[in-house]
This record gives sequence, structure tokens and C-alpha cells, in this order.
Amino acid sequence: MSEPKENPLEKIASLCKRRGFIFQSSEIYGGINGFWDYGPLGAELKRNVKELWWQTMVLQRDDVAGLEATIIMHPGIWRASGHVDTFADAMIDCKTCKGRFRADQISEIPCPQKPSKKVSECAGEKTAPRAFNLMFKTCVGPVESEENVAYLRPETAQAIFAQFKNVLETSRQKVPFGIAQIGKAFRNEITPRNYTFRSREFEQMELEFFIRPDEVVEAVSGSVAAPVSKGHPGRPGADWGWQLWHQYWVEERIRFYGNIGLPRATLEEYWQSDQELAHYARATVDLLFKFPFGTQELEGIAARSDFDLSQHQRFSGKTMGVFDDELKAAWEKLPKERQDALWRRYYEHRKKYLARMGVAEEQAARTATDDANGLARGQYIPHVIEPSAGVDRLILALICHAYSEDQAPDEKGKLETRTVLRFHPRVAPIKAAVFPLLKNKPELVARALAVRDLLRPHMNVFYDEAGAIGRRYRRQDEIGTPFCLTIDFETLGEKGEALKDTVTLRDRDTMSQERIKIPELLSFLLSKIH
Amino acid sequence: MSEPKENPLEKIASLCKRRGFIFQSSEIYGGINGFWDYGPLGAELKRNVKELWWQTMVLQRDDVAGLEATIIMHPGIWRASGHVDTFADAMIDCKTCKGRFRADQISEIPCPQKPSKKVSECAGEKTAPRAFNLMFKTCVGPVESEENVAYLRPETAQAIFAQFKNVLETSRQKVPFGIAQIGKAFRNEITPRNYTFRSREFEQMELEFFIRPDEVVEAVSGSVAAPVSKGHPGRPGADWGWQLWHQYWVEERIRFYGNIGLPRATLEEYWQSDQELAHYARATVDLLFKFPFGTQELEGIAARSDFDLSQHQRFSGKTMGVFDDELKAAWEKLPKERQDALWRRYYEHRKKYLARMGVAEEQAARTATDDANGLARGQYIPHVIEPSAGVDRLILALICHAYSEDQAPDEKGKLETRTVLRFHPRVAPIKAAVFPLLKNKPELVARALAVRDLLRPHMNVFYDEAGAIGRRYRRQDEIGTPFCLTIDFETLGEKGEALKDTVTLRDRDTMSQERIKIPELLSFLLSKIH
Repeated sequence: MSEPKENPLEKIASLCKRRGFIFQSSEIYGGINGFWDYGPLGAELKRNVKELWWQTMVLQRDDVAGLEATIIMHPGIWRASGHVDTFADAMIDCKTCKGRFRADQISEIPCPQKPSKKVSECAGEKTAPRAFNLMFKTCVGPVESEENVAYLRPETAQAIFAQFKNVLETSRQKVPFGIAQIGKAFRNEITPRNYTFRSREFEQMELEFFIRPDEVVEAVSGSVAAPVSKGHPGRPGADWGWQLWHQYWVEERIRFYGNIGLPRATLEEYWQSDQELAHYARATVDLLFKFPFGTQELEGIAARSDFDLSQHQRFSGKTMGVFDDELKAAWEKLPKERQDALWRRYYEHRKKYLARMGVAEEQAARTATDDANGLARGQYIPHVIEPSAGVDRLILALICHAYSEDQAPDEKGKLETRTVLRFHPRVAPIKAAVFPLLKNKPELVARALAVRDLLRPHMNVFYDEAGAIGRRYRRQDEIGTPFCLTIDFETLGEKGEALKDTVTLRDRDTMSQERIKIPELLSFLLSKIH
Repeated sequence: MSEPKENPLEKIASLCKRRGFIFQSSEIYGGINGFWDYGPLGAELKRNVKELWWQTMVLQRDDVAGLEATIIMHPGIWRASGHVDTFADAMIDCKTCKGRFRADQISEIPCPQKPSKKVSECAGEKTAPRAFNLMFKTCVGPVESEENVAYLRPETAQAIFAQFKNVLETSRQKVPFGIAQIGKAFRNEITPRNYTFRSREFEQMELEFFIRPDEVVEAVSGSVAAPVSKGHPGRPGADWGWQLWHQYWVEERIRFYGNIGLPRATLEEYWQSDQELAHYARATVDLLFKFPFGTQELEGIAARSDFDLSQHQRFSGKTMGVFDDELKAAWEKLPKERQDALWRRYYEHRKKYLARMGVAEEQAARTATDDANGLARGQYIPHVIEPSAGVDRLILALICHAYSEDQAPDEKGKLETRTVLRFHPRVAPIKAAVFPLLKNKPELVARALAVRDLLRPHMNVFYDEAGAIGRRYRRQDEIGTPFCLTIDFETLGEKGEALKDTVTLRDRDTMSQERIKIPELLSFLLSKIH
């Protein structure tokens, strides 16, 4: 007998493997570190989460368009974004054991040759820390050469910036509007860990929401509305600057998590300090979740100024500016001193960006002048708010939050430990399980299959006839199915007319049972899962 | 003025770019050959197609489980599958211009230095043809070395084989059953061409449907049912061998295409000849579509025997066999001579496979004996039928098939050319467009927005108030929106009670208009798009 597992993450991983949520990639070949596959239930859970995100962020809004770009893109994109130069970890090589280690982890990681010592303590001679880029490299085309090097995208966001103008011109959107994308990204993490939390291949759900610079908001609306002191700022107004838009998206994202079963109380809102912010970021809020291995980031919502589009404009030589007829009309009507003041602020902002990017003073001043002159023609580069979520860590958070154990009576009334995944019905991989009371009664089986066929076009249902009803309930509890339906002799009308054409509806969380009429089943279940 | 484009593919590509279906990847950086992005409408079209495939192949069936595996897997998988050794094109280098060319294309491709001549005719000295593997390579982990090489999967199928046992053990399925997956795959094509048809990054929808070997079917059912001479073989029976299962899946796939707007008449069914078949394949049917650039494969449905699982068993050292209690029970009751005959056939099949894979005669005989002895214990390696479809080429086929031009009267009654994408409503990116007759009448706008909000939770709708109604219709025709709804003064009841609370429903294909009551709108539209 194996020891009881007391580490909650191990229990969860064990359940995920046993019930087909998550498998190690390439397991039969010994696995491959940092890669995880989703089994039948995991794939369904992931599909549900991605569909809900897409519905919320794209289809149920007027102001967001979707995109699906390739994983391999022109390497110029990663030079513009800074990933080629700076997306790196400092690494140290050991000349004795030939191992390579993250410089910030050598006092945690055991020496491969003398595992009793940490790498930092062992006798092996070490190199100085060297930058190691985290992007996976490959070559496109028949010749393996430097000029054919391409990268697997380390984030989906840059594709959105690169296609910004194409989407703007074809989608009939205008600023403020967003572009959303879901897709795989890859990071050659030195130390993948914490189960699926930090893996080398993962999926992102990213929105880039493009807004007017505050100078433009002020020119058009007369002033920029003040940020709210707390809570959701409500419906967007034309006078919203980046701060209100940022607050809005933080609150919208928290609302999304609440809708899929992670209420606000399960999240921690972490506002990065000025020291932590990336140089181009004006504010970043991390939404954290308390995983068994620590409180870690689920999503970051960053106000990224106009950094990304500006970089792509400089590196591609293509303009990323937009024309805004409201700005043009408003500008003409502004008093000269307002024009000058806004011009100056915009000029300073642009010049500061260019100087930080290493553009020589004089050139930066010239370019910033051109940029600020654009305002009068209704032209500017939009700023952006970026809510960026990781699908895999969200799936893990949902499973961790859903996981629970309680005591429930078995068939003989004896209490036993029940494992339950208390998923919100919206994300549960299976919405309802359908059981005939007995599998050797053809009338029960036929009726149960008919109920399954009634529901199946509308939701994922599972038919099960094997074993005692209590065991069938437990199997569904363990995979988070919110409702079980049992077809019995009452259903067939064999015990009188009163309960004819009703089934037993059993609730996963309360374990309570009630009778429900078959014709009412579909609308009842739909109301719970939508 | 540009010349009218007469090449139909150019017209289609131009529409796809103009309306946001398909963009060149990384266009602002000059693009990257063989990579294409999907814009807002293309992304939605693709989502619809993938969702319909998943519904049809997984959720609406009992016998298929889903999977979502990683793109980067253990390289051992590609040694087992044969891709490391044989997934290659023969290439020729020119020592003069340093170009590398596919050996079978040197008489088509112009010489880069003297484009008036083909490569085969130019004076440059050429190497002999050499194999060039089409898998994209990368390195996983901090050290770039041979032992860290990994590949981007060139197909999604192998992940299914590698996870076969995990899925079998966790999904409560038994043979016959299938595992389905949708996901990206990558091939470093030397000459990507025909728009999105042959690209380097693409998406597949693959099902591996595992069945009993015919010997097992015969042992359990007494005989193997004969294949049908034509058409759909109907509901699967326990006596189906690989031929009926293969026919079944060919017909199911043709039915799927019919359901999304590619009727049987648009497809060509091509049965590969014995010479064309891969060595392990027993039959392969290609479903072809007549693209503007030629009749080309949309999907292949292959009967792959037990080749794939057998290879993974040999390479991983893990058993890929299943235990089948019905076989075990049936075998015991078989007369000795039937047992011997089935044993012999299974033995010969297994030995032939092993010999073909280079296993020495004596070893092959020993292993095949073990394999055949397994039958009596209810054990065997399942065979597989593989319907494998390319998402991107299907999207292109749907657009090509939907594209049409006709003559329609403009606002003044003058005939003009109308471009229409006649998508099936099930796949159309936008299901209904909602227009207020005039944008400067707040009551019309409010009512139109209310109609949009009524429909939006159930389908993708688009609100448009810009321009004359005729132009708004044309814009929707061009992107394939099947229904347009106009809210006018009749809707408001300003022209009497009779048409109050009705809208004009305009049909994309017939251009006919009818009045429909708002409360009936949702169920009418749902009946068309489901």
C-alpha cells in the first residue's frame, strides 16, 4: 500500500492523471520536461474556458475583433519587441559537470554530481553568468543559416501589434477598440516547475485594447475623467484616459473570473510598484491565485502606453498611426494655448520614448516634433491596455479551487471520503450524467438513452450504466459533473402515475435529490450552465 | 486604375485581405513565406468549422474521446513514426548560386541568377539529390546539442498514438473507439504555394479510430461482415472488420462536408492504388476539392492497420495492447481448428510487419508467436482508421466554393456586379446583420440595438448604421452574412399597427425580403444556423 499523499498538489495531479484531465506529454518515452497534454476531460475543460473568454471578450462586445496569427513569424517582430535582446535569463555553466543553471537558482538546485550539495556550494568551477535567450529557435526554409533563424512566439501579443493596421482597416472599428487572440506560446524555461503552472509550451488569451493618448482625450472631450477610487468605473466614456481604461479592464477581468467560478475573494490584486514596472508600462496589475505551491500570477493587466506600436513603426518602417476625425475637428476649435500645451505634453512623451530607445537627442527631437504635429491632422499612435491571461494556469487554478474532500455515506450508510471537483457548471467538462437505475432492464436503458439524446445537442452529457448508483455518483463527483440524472421504475410509470416521466436529479454539491419532469429538464439545465 | 483580375484565386485572395479573412503573416516586415494569419472574419470562420468538427466527431458520439497534446513532444515519437528517417524531400544544391531546390522541381523553377532559364538548364554545378527532412527542429533546454533536439510536430496523429493507453485507461472507452484532436502542425515545405493551401504552419483535425483486427472480429462474431458495394454502411455492427469501418468513415466525412456547405458533388473520392499506398496502409481514400489551382486533397481517410501502435510499442518498450474480455470469452469457446486458423493469420500479419521493419527473421517469428498467443488471453494491438483533415485547406475550399458574382440592381435600379460569399449559415462568420434604416433617428437606433442584444447571446451578429441600406447589404453579401435585418418606421408602428414590431429580413442568396415578427426572429434564425 502506498502512503497517503498529503501534498495537495500531488493529490490533484494524481486525480488529473487518473481521470484523464492532464497527462505528461510523451509519457511512454519517459516524458519531456515542461510539456503537458490534456486528456479527454482536460481538453473539454480547456475548450469551455477558452470559449467563455472569447464570448466575453470578443463576441458579446462591439469593440473587440478576433485574430488568429501564426506561431512562427518574421524574426523582425522579436527584434522590435525587445525579445531578441532582452528576453533572457542569466545562466551559469559548471565546467566540471557541464551542467547549465539559472544564476538566481544555484543556491536552490542540487549539484548533479553531488546532490547533497547545492550547485553554489560544490567544488566545480563555474563560468560568469551569461544571458540565455528563452525563445525557442528554428530555421525556416531548406538552409540552416543565421538569416533563416525564426522563433516560436514567446507570447501571442506581438502578432496583434504587427497586424494592428490590417485589422483596423478591415474590421470597421475605430479607437478605442481591441484585438483578441487565443493561442499557443513557447518559452524555453530553464526550470519548468509547479506541475502545469510554468511549462515550456502553454496557451495564452490576450487582448490588446487600443485607446487614445490622454492628450487626444483631452483635446476631444475637454478634460480627462479622474480615475475612480475603488471598484468598477462603469460604462466607458469618451473622456476616459488610460487610467480609467486600465481600471475598467482590471474589473472586467475580475468579473470574468467570478463568472467561471473564481470569485473575487479567491484572487489577489497586486499593483506593481514603480520599481517593478517595465520601463514602458504605466501601471500593471497582477491577478494572483493561491496555488498549493504559493500565490502566483494568473493574469497581468498592463497599461503599456504606445510602446509596442511605436517599436513596430520604427522597426518595420510602416506607420502605426491612426487617423481620428474627431480629434481633427476638435483640434481646430481649440484655443492656441491649449493646442500648445497638449502639443508640448505629447512631444515630451514621444521624445522620452525615443531617447530611452537610444535614438540620438537631435533625431528624437525631430521625430517627436513630427509626431506632435500629427495631432493637428488627427493623427497619433494609440496607447494600449493589455489583459493577458494564461490558459493553463487558469485551468490549474480552477482545478485546485474546485478540489475538495468531504464525508459522505456509502451504499451501506458508512461514511467515506468523497472527492469532489466543485467546478462552476459553466466550465465543468460534463454537464450532466445520465444513468439507468439498472443496466439489465431494456426499458430503463432505452429511456435513459432517450434522455441523453434529448440533452446531447445542447451540452456535453455522459451515459453510464456500470455499477451501483452510488459508485456512479462518486465517479461523476470526482470529475466535477454538476448534475446526475437517474431513470428508474418511477420514470416508466411502474409505481403509479404521480412520478411517471420524471427523473431523479442529483446535485453534486449538496448531494440532494429531487424529481424533475423530463420535458422541463433541458431548460432547467440550460439555465444552470449558461 | 489596376487591371481587372481574372485569376479567380487572386480575386479571392484580394477579397480575403480586404475584408479581414486572411492576411499574410508579419506583413509589415515583408511577410514570411508559407505563413498566413486569420483576420477577424477568418478567425470566426475557422472557429465555426472546428467547433462543428468537434461536435460531430466527439461530443455528439459515444465512442470518441478528445485530446489536446503538445506541439513539441519527445523526439522518440518521430523515430517510431518514421518521420526522422523518411519524412524528407530530395534536394539539390547549386554550387554556383548557392540555391537549394527540390529535386522534382528543378525543371519548373527559374534559376535565381538567370531567371530566363530553369534551374535544370542553367550552367551552375549541382550536387546529387540529398534528403532534407521537413520537420522543423529546435532545442529544448539550455544547451544546444544533438541530445536536446526536438521537433515541431508535422502531424497531430502521433500524439494520439502516444497517449492511446492513457486515454483508454481514463475514458471508460473500449475498442472500437476513437481519439480526436485539433491542433497546429508544421512542415518546413521547400515550396509553400497555392495561397493557404500548402503552408508551413497549418492546423489539422484528426481522428484515430481504433478497431479490432479482423481475426478478433471473426473470433467474437463468427465472421466478418462483407463490405458494402456502394454508399453508407449504416450503423456499426460487432461483425465489422476494417473494410466496413473504413467505408463508414469515408461516408461520415462526406456527410460532414455536406453539412457545412460542400455537397458530395463538390468532392471527388479518390481511392489510392496499391502502388500509391504507404506500406502499412490497407486502403486510403482522398477526398478532393476542385480548387482554382487544381483538384487537391482536403482530407485523407486511411486504414493504417496496427502499424502506428506497434511502432510505439517497439520504440517505447511499453505495451500498446488492449485486453478484450469478449475476445477472451469467445476464444475459449472456439473449436481448436478455428483457433489455429485465426492464430496463424494473426501470426503471419504480425511477422510480416516485423520483417518489414527490419526485425531479424528468428526474432520476428518469436515476437509474432507471442503476439498471436495473446489472442487466447484476450490481447491484441488495435488497428486504426484515420480520417485526417486540414483546417486551412478546408477554409480555403469553403471560401472558393462560396465565392460568386452575380448582377444585382444598385440603389437607382442599375445592374452592378455583386460579390457574394454563399457560406452555409452554419459556418458563416456573422449570422445576422442588424441595421436601423437611418442612423440619425434615435428610436430606430435604439430599437436596432435592442434587436442586436436579443440575438447576440445566441449567435454572432453585427450592427451597422453607416451608409445606404443597399451598400450595407453589399458589405454583408461580400462576407457571407446569410441574413440582414432592417429596423424601419414600420417596426416602430409609425405606419400603422399591421407591421408594428416586425423587421425586414433579407436573404443573402435570393435577395428576397420579408417581414418577420421580432419575437419570432430568434427561433427562425436558430433553425437556420443549427
